[in-house]
Amino acid sequence: MVIVMGLDAPRDDIEKVKEKVTLLECTPHEITGSSKLAIGITGPTNKLNEEDFQMLPSVQEVVRVTKKYKLVSRQMKVDDTIISIDNNVVGGEELFICAGPCSVESRDQILEIANQLKEIGVKFIRAGAFKPRSSPYSFQGLKEKGLEYLQEVKDKYGLKVVTEVLNTSTLPAVTEVADILQIGSRNMMNFTLLVEAGMTGKPVLLKRGMSATVEDLLLSAEYILAQDNYNVILCERGIRTFETSTRNTLDLNAIPVVKKHSHLPIIVDPSHGVGIWDKVPAMSMAAIAARADGLLLEVHQRPDEALSDGYQSLTPKQFEELLNKLKELAPVVGRKITL
Amino acid sequence: MVIVMGLDAPRDDIEKVKEKVTLLECTPHEITGSSKLAIGITGPTNKLNEEDFQMLPSVQEVVRVTKKYKLVSRQMKVDDTIISIDNNVVGGEELFICAGPCSVESRDQILEIANQLKEIGVKFIRAGAFKPRSSPYSFQGLKEKGLEYLQEVKDKYGLKVVTEVLNTSTLPAVTEVADILQIGSRNMMNFTLLVEAGMTGKPVLLKRGMSATVEDLLLSAEYILAQDNYNVILCERGIRTFETSTRNTLDLNAIPVVKKHSHLPIIVDPSHGVGIWDKVPAMSMAAIAARADGLLLEVHQRPDEALSDGYQSLTPKQFEELLNKLKELAPVVGRKITL
Amino acid sequence: MVIVMGLDAPRDDIEKVKEKVTLLECTPHEITGSSKLAIGITGPTNKLNEEDFQMLPSVQEVVRVTKKYKLVSRQMKVDDTIISIDNNVVGGEELFICAGPCSVESRDQILEIANQLKEIGVKFIRAGAFKPRSSPYSFQGLKEKGLEYLQEVKDKYGLKVVTEVLNTSTLPAVTEVADILQIGSRNMMNFTLLVEAGMTGKPVLLKRGMSATVEDLLLSAEYILAQDNYNVILCERGIRTFETSTRNTLDLNAIPVVKKHSHLPIIVDPSHGVGIWDKVPAMSMAAIAARADGLLLEVHQRPDEALSDGYQSLTPKQFEELLNKLKELAPVVGRKITL
Amino acid sequence: MVIVMGLDAPRDDIEKVKEKVTLLECTPHEITGSSKLAIGITGPTNKLNEEDFQMLPSVQEVVRVTKKYKLVSRQMKVDDTIISIDNNVVGGEELFICAGPCSVESRDQILEIANQLKEIGVKFIRAGAFKPRSSPYSFQGLKEKGLEYLQEVKDKYGLKVVTEVLNTSTLPAVTEVADILQIGSRNMMNFTLLVEAGMTGKPVLLKRGMSATVEDLLLSAEYILAQDNYNVILCERGIRTFETSTRNTLDLNAIPVVKKHSHLPIIVDPSHGVGIWDKVPAMSMAAIAARADGLLLEVHQRPDEALSDGYQSLTPKQFEELLNKLKELAPVVGRKITL
Repeated sequence: MVIVMGLDAPRDDIEKVKEKVTLLECTPHEITGSSKLAIGITGPTNKLNEEDFQMLPSVQEVVRVTKKYKLVSRQMKVDDTIISIDNNVVGGEELFICAGPCSVESRDQILEIANQLKEIGVKFIRAGAFKPRSSPYSFQGLKEKGLEYLQEVKDKYGLKVVTEVLNTSTLPAVTEVADILQIGSRNMMNFTLLVEAGMTGKPVLLKRGMSATVEDLLLSAEYILAQDNYNVILCERGIRTFETSTRNTLDLNAIPVVKKHSHLPIIVDPSHGVGIWDKVPAMSMAAIAARADGLLLEVHQRPDEALSDGYQSLTPKQFEELLNKLKELAPVVGRKITL
Repeated sequence: MVIVMGLDAPRDDIEKVKEKVTLLECTPHEITGSSKLAIGITGPTNKLNEEDFQMLPSVQEVVRVTKKYKLVSRQMKVDDTIISIDNNVVGGEELFICAGPCSVESRDQILEIANQLKEIGVKFIRAGAFKPRSSPYSFQGLKEKGLEYLQEVKDKYGLKVVTEVLNTSTLPAVTEVADILQIGSRNMMNFTLLVEAGMTGKPVLLKRGMSATVEDLLLSAEYILAQDNYNVILCERGIRTFETSTRNTLDLNAIPVVKKHSHLPIIVDPSHGVGIWDKVPAMSMAAIAARADGLLLEVHQRPDEALSDGYQSLTPKQFEELLNKLKELAPVVGRKITL
Repeated sequence: MVIVMGLDAPRDDIEKVKEKVTLLECTPHEITGSSKLAIGITGPTNKLNEEDFQMLPSVQEVVRVTKKYKLVSRQMKVDDTIISIDNNVVGGEELFICAGPCSVESRDQILEIANQLKEIGVKFIRAGAFKPRSSPYSFQGLKEKGLEYLQEVKDKYGLKVVTEVLNTSTLPAVTEVADILQIGSRNMMNFTLLVEAGMTGKPVLLKRGMSATVEDLLLSAEYILAQDNYNVILCERGIRTFETSTRNTLDLNAIPVVKKHSHLPIIVDPSHGVGIWDKVPAMSMAAIAARADGLLLEVHQRPDEALSDGYQSLTPKQFEELLNKLKELAPVVGRKITL
Repeated sequence: MVIVMGLDAPRDDIEKVKEKVTLLECTPHEITGSSKLAIGITGPTNKLNEEDFQMLPSVQEVVRVTKKYKLVSRQMKVDDTIISIDNNVVGGEELFICAGPCSVESRDQILEIANQLKEIGVKFIRAGAFKPRSSPYSFQGLKEKGLEYLQEVKDKYGLKVVTEVLNTSTLPAVTEVADILQIGSRNMMNFTLLVEAGMTGKPVLLKRGMSATVEDLLLSAEYILAQDNYNVILCERGIRTFETSTRNTLDLNAIPVVKKHSHLPIIVDPSHGVGIWDKVPAMSMAAIAARADGLLLEVHQRPDEALSDGYQSLTPKQFEELLNKLKELAPVVGRKITL
């Protein structure tokens, strides 16, 4: 249920609504939109009556949220969520472009690629210090050492860091370095991790699971928002189907579906989605044309030597060519890229 | 196997190659590209030796085709295939835009929408006279009557007609009216129909089956090309996956995959792909950005009253708004729309 | 809609009901069960009123069929359908066991394996004369010659023949030889073929399409029953999923689903379902335990030399070992095998 | 790589092999089979030479393991793994039958059903204290309180308890009560949890993820075995496909695939697999016929009142009827049920 109030509602009236919600054993969530203020309510809302709230001062409307997800839904918050990270935004006019290697492989490797990306104008670098791998015998990342190198990247080049958090025990260490916490596909339904990541207050980039429906993805996001952390960026990265000519089936249909039912920004990871570098540019363009809010791209200075996922990485030169095309495309869909 | 010769190879030399192929119990296919002439060979090519051809006059190169599909592959023909239909092309700089209702419902209905589409500048109208339906009790189309009305649309408005052929017995009647024969998803592996449609020489729009891999689609196209009919337009229209928020999962990844392995044009049907009209514009834009050669769109003057698939149809007004966005997008990917 | 009458209803009363149905522009289908007689009605039944029939003599009950399929549903016919083919049954206590090679490869090959199967006691042999193949360059069967050899098998060994019909043009020739017409996965939605095969009156073995839901399968069967041909045997043969350790994902869940919603018998083809011979015995046992009415098994005297699908074929010896296990299993589920 | 030695190899010779492995920076795992003793080696085995080990005393054979998973594979250990839990086994002649409600709902509920199951003769009860739910607003289990009640069940009825562990923070508490730790589908790739659960030494029941291939499942099991915990029970519980007539597509094909490539026992959860109670008996029978080592079944005294998954639960009476059929079936596949 959501209680709609005017932006000019006096603080006292707002508090009165929240108190009443609490009294009825539900949880109030204050959501400020561009033209309205809303009190989202979660918990056993089936016990609430619309009339109990309609009569309270400054209340304009009381709306039942019909979706299983609540805080995530557009019924709860009509305006697009725009997430600010220092001077950057996700979900605004400026497209979010994040690039970098699959994993931190060495101090030299990450500093070299960071330098190249910085020169190209990129603001966000992605690289995993902790890598989830199907096999226990595959390279699992440089772990704490990798985080150190990422901190050095931040200090030296001023890049913002997007990096994956694998479990709750390393969450504090990752949170210290990351500007955006990435939760991977395999952990999309690791609800404990979702809750604890939500509680850090950091922006969370939540990747869709390989067999998750869009509704599943939104329900997982709800776990984070329920911690009063609204800084969630959804990420489409391909689902599992019978098709084998691409690594996964990048499901761009998720973009208009998410945009309709949720206010959260959604970006696309075409590198994992198709798994072969030469299909990445076409699918990057398609993602932005479908109104995605940004891209997560694998870029490696020497893809042939990458310790993981080299086959799906662009070189910095290929990435720059793609960026130039994306800059041309952005205005057609009312966006821009000002790297 | 493919025998590459110069464009200026004397007719005699070409015939000598073809005779040798025939003598060895294989079938020669003459393919003229922009800078080369090729003799594609199908049949029991494993019995052929490269050397047998390398010594023949005007032969520049002999290449083994490693894919299961032969005539369809880029190894056989490097240049993109451009199909001409009177003054229109499919696969060229100009994007192919085909719009219309799911089915011919009545004389009035089809003439009215044809008129509206004509005004908007559309060259190709789509509408089914014969409809394949999962249930024998659903509306199966106006059949021969529907073809008559489509002929009237051609005569009156000069529109080109794309319509589905369901079986070999109605193929002659459909071929008389259709400018492009559509073969639907359910018939993608109806090999008898593929062969006979191929033999008409008409352009064939071949839709991907609901569970067909891209390789399956290309192999089905091969059945048509093997009749020496190279006028095949592939069409992505969504595959079956676990996701239920869209009717099918429109697999735009198929576009760069097809473009890499084949010279054939590929268009996209986002209406069937997503099954809900309000997601069609985003996916249309995405398709063109991913370098599709055109779109097949359901447009109905009164979607609410449509006898089939109304829920996925745009109104003429919505279609025109989408066209305007597509016109802006086209130059970014080196294409144009000059309706 | 279905009109339930007693088995002892006078012919006059039955005809009166059928006339009324016809008068109301619908089609009556007389269905005789073990304890009731039913008049199934198809066509625009939404215009019918229950009361119009309830008052007619001998009418016991009028039931609306809520499923999209009608004649196929258990609402229309409560008793299991048992199909008789000379002295054999499908759907009865005796399990239907049909074995043989993927295709007729030569006169010697088919006579040899027929002889071996005959010795084992098999009543039904399967072998394709016309083969649907993804590639136009793969072996397409011996065609008419193959039918001739199958006729010889019938004459010489008295085996019943199950063989695939690929298209309407060869339907008459196939119908002359086949005791059961097989319609393959790729043709499950070739509605023209379904209708014409239905009209022959021959038993039809209808394979589930690779991406067909059980409801799709039942709707396709409805096309055959609507020709008043109730001799339809459904066949589960694996669906397309992301799993690659088996050729297809044999979906045994379809058995209890079909048994609940339809009266038609359902058999299983584990050979195509898993695609690797050594998994065939386990899945055959599982199919019968799940209450399938029989099995379609690939058996080849020399799998290594098979022209198609050898990898999934059992040898006659392996087949016999499996049969022995199946004979032990059958009584546990109230069935028997008396080869 | 695996070093095969005789069962009678002197301890010194065994230690010599293990030391050499350690010296070469790999990890040795001693595996005792019925007729051989093997030293499995994991780590950077590509640096090892067969000859280095072939010359050591008591070494009979050196085998390269070609699969990505090592300790899990049959190449490493030929004999079926049989797990002992007090006087019970999993993977032996006696089938493993575990039944109970989806979740512990109250003290009364769990004691009542435990009592009924005990009377039927069941040795293992299943019930979740911690429930992973797609929505944060669904019932999440009684948590610690639920564990308490499960302990009471153990004390009072002597039943063994199978219960899910959701995260590492509650692992110690769950481990204290559980006789078998269940790791659910959503956590199949929660590698941190796999490792820590493995380290407890407790038997682990590992459920296949909804989009996990069998190879993925075996690789996840490898994470547990790599902690030298060989007590892993695999569990097939349905995968996600396009089919909607069942909740998931129970993939029984996984059973013969696992049996071929791994020595680990595999059981089946048909309740989650099909999601509708009336299909559970057929699929239970099928699972055992396909040579599964046991079943995990949802049984609830009043399915209509269940707080979760009631629709897929059997009543104790239905469960007992199924058990009687299973007892008949077991000997056909060389197994028994002696409840």
